[in-house]
Order: sequence, then C-alpha cells, then structure tokens
Amino acid sequence: MNGVVLLSGGMDSSTLLAHCIDAFPDGRHYAISFDYGQRHRRELNAAADIARYFNTPHQIADLRSVGRDFMFGSSQTSMIPVPQGHYTDDSMRVTIVPNRNMVMLSIATAFAIASHSDFVGYAAHAGDHAIYPDCRPEFVTAMGEAIRLCDDHKVSIYTPYIDLTKAQILEEGLYRNVPYQLTWTCYEGLSFPCGKCGTCVERAEAFELNKQGDPLLQGGPA
Amino acid sequence: MNGVVLLSGGMDSSTLLAHCIDAFPDGRHYAISFDYGQRHRRELNAAADIARYFNTPHQIADLRSVGRDFMFGSSQTSMIPVPQGHYTDDSMRVTIVPNRNMVMLSIATAFAIASHSDFVGYAAHAGDHAIYPDCRPEFVTAMGEAIRLCDDHKVSIYTPYIDLTKAQILEEGLYRNVPYQLTWTCYEGLSFPCGKCGTCVERAEAFELNKQGDPLLQGGPA
Repeated sequence: MNGVVLLSGGMDSSTLLAHCIDAFPDGRHYAISFDYGQRHRRELNAAADIARYFNTPHQIADLRSVGRDFMFGSSQTSMIPVPQGHYTDDSMRVTIVPNRNMVMLSIATAFAIASHSDFVGYAAHAGDHAIYPDCRPEFVTAMGEAIRLCDDHKVSIYTPYIDLTKAQILEEGLYRNVPYQLTWTCYEGLSFPCGKCGTCVERAEAFELNKQGDPLLQGGPA
Repeated sequence: MNGVVLLSGGMDSSTLLAHCIDAFPDGRHYAISFDYGQRHRRELNAAADIARYFNTPHQIADLRSVGRDFMFGSSQTSMIPVPQGHYTDDSMRVTIVPNRNMVMLSIATAFAIASHSDFVGYAAHAGDHAIYPDCRPEFVTAMGEAIRLCDDHKVSIYTPYIDLTKAQILEEGLYRNVPYQLTWTCYEGLSFPCGKCGTCVERAEAFELNKQGDPLLQGGPA
C-alpha cells in the first residue's frame, strides 16, 4: 500500500505519517503540504523537518495565488489578529479558511493518481468535529466516495483518527516515538509557541492528559 | 440564487453561464477559470471574452505551480503531441489531467463560500461519461454531497447538463443566443481550430446535428 499523507507539520498529521510508515512498511509514502499564504512559515518548515526525519519525499504545493484570490475572511491568511482562547469558542471560527481541506484532499488525490498511490492519508480527528465541518465523518465519507470515483486508478481516503481525540493520537505517537519537538502547532510564527492560542491550548491539554512534557517547550522561556 | 460557474471557455460551460443567468435572473453570478498550465492561452482568453460578453465577474485561479508539480502525464500540460481522432479512442485518454475537475470544483466551492453563493455550476455532460470518470453522475453525486457538507454555509453543485449530449447543450445555447464565435474548443492553440483533434470533431458533430454552421469557422481557411 502506497500513500500520500497530508502533512501540515502539526502533531496529528506527523503522527499519521509515522502510523502509515509503520502500518504499511513495504509501501512508498509521500508527504504533501500546502502553502496557502499562512501567516508564517513555521508550520511548513516543521512539515519539511518531519518528512526529512522519516526519510519521506515531501512536496509543498503552492496555492498562494489561489489564496490571495479566494481565501479571504480568515485570520490565517490576513493580518487581522489571531483570536485567543479555546477552539470551541465562537471567536475561533474566524480561523477557518474556506474549504481548505477539500482543496488539499483534491490536490493530494491528483498526486496519488499520478504517483500510482493507493490512499490519501488525512488526520481529521474527533476534536475538530465541533468546529470544522470538513473534519466530520459525514464529510470524510462523501469525499472518500468522490475520491474513489474520480479516476480509473482507484484511490481511497485513509482517516484512522476520525474518532480519536488529540490526546489519543498523541498517545499513539508517543508509542511510535514521533519527534514532537520538530512539530509546530501555534498559530503565531514566533520563535517559541505563544501558549495562548487555541492550538497551543489543545496541544498542552493533550500532553497533560498523557502525563508527558512537550519536548517543544523544553529549554524555552519559563 | 447566486452562482459560481466553472467556465473553461468552451461551448458547454459558456452555455451553462448563459443558462444560469437566464434561470436565476435575480442572482449574482461569477465565472471562474483555471490556469493549470494549458498548452495555450486560447481557452482562457475565450473564457474572459465570454464572461465580458455576459457582464459577469471573472476570476482566473492560478494553479500553474501545482500543475508543474503534479499534473504530469498529460498532453494538455506538456509538449508531447496532441493525439488526433475521436474522443472515444484509447489514444485520447492521454488528455486527462489527474483529478482536474475535483480540484477545480473544490476551489470554486471555496469561492462560493467566500462570496456567499448558493451553487457551483459544472457543465459535465453525457458525452464525457465514457472517457472521464469525473464527469459521470455517480462522481457528481458524491462530490455534491461533499460540497454540501464541507462548510456551515451550504453550497450545492448544479449540473443541468449531466444527462445531455453536446448537441443538446448546443441546441439550448442556440436558443439562448450564446456567442459561440467567442468560445474556443480546439486543443491546439493556433489562430484557427485544427479541425482534427477530438474536441474539434465533437464540436463539428454538434453543429451538424443542429443543422447550423459554426460561427467560429466563418471567414477562416477553407
């Protein structure tokens, strides 16, 4: 089984890459990331570091011009302030880039077809269901069907984390020795995680629930 | 009803734009085209001309860098010769760009969400079912479901031509006075249609079945 993994550089997709390599050790695996005009390069650099760590070919698809044209109304691609607080707050909804996951899955599927891969790995998980419609099981099911039907070369969508929490994914990743010090989660592009944005709060919760320290925070500001 | 129409600059999507404007006269309509590194600019220029004719805001999304990275293996984006003959020949399969329609539908949906539109118009038709999996009704159904579920703002896919032939679409377009002299169909980027490629053959058949001359061919080489 050969796979194309959507790799953001965050915890979940990095764990998924490790999972795929372990689960399908005889397969060829690719990682694909997307430059849609994020506020900062930290996440894309993390994706490159993770791919290199796992010795996996990595491609960054450039959607910046599409982002400039269409992806307005999101704090991830503009200079309006990042809302702080927990993800389930209404204030966090502004971080949604319209239909980003469908766009990324579509392009990853194109790459899967071109590279004769069997699946596209997508780290959607239960923690995102409440806020992101395109991380919910019903979206994944419909999109998986579209992906299966779009070409004579059959590609499936692989979402082993669809019903897991971030803490459960982390538990798996700790078992697989994922180098979480190389991942990046914070919405801000500072030299150290801000500790306040929704993703920082979620990451800290996941490590707390696993009774582990976050290796990314070791040696940083107190 | 506000719509975003996928406009290639060919006959079918140009007819669909006229159809949407007639069918939903109170709506705002947008046209979106895609530069994925086509061999020539004729089609994109035709799309711009058609949008201008219908006084419709038009945006060209730049997927060239994605195309360079992933969309190999297709005669539409490389310098290998265009196969000649009818579309149902095996030789024509090389004109498929992997998963192009899903990528375009995904980005059009992003634009529909951002512009508070109600539907994405897609001119898939029965003549393409045999060769293009992503023009078939089952793909359109699955993709429509994914589009409906991808965001809190509900967008539908609108495919009124899914069971029509090219000749039937042309019949509708002639009734709607679509300016077919502005459209471009030929795979070659010459000053005049080659008359030999699969799309030229199909176009000629459609006009013959409607007992009409093609206005694009008037005044050209004998």
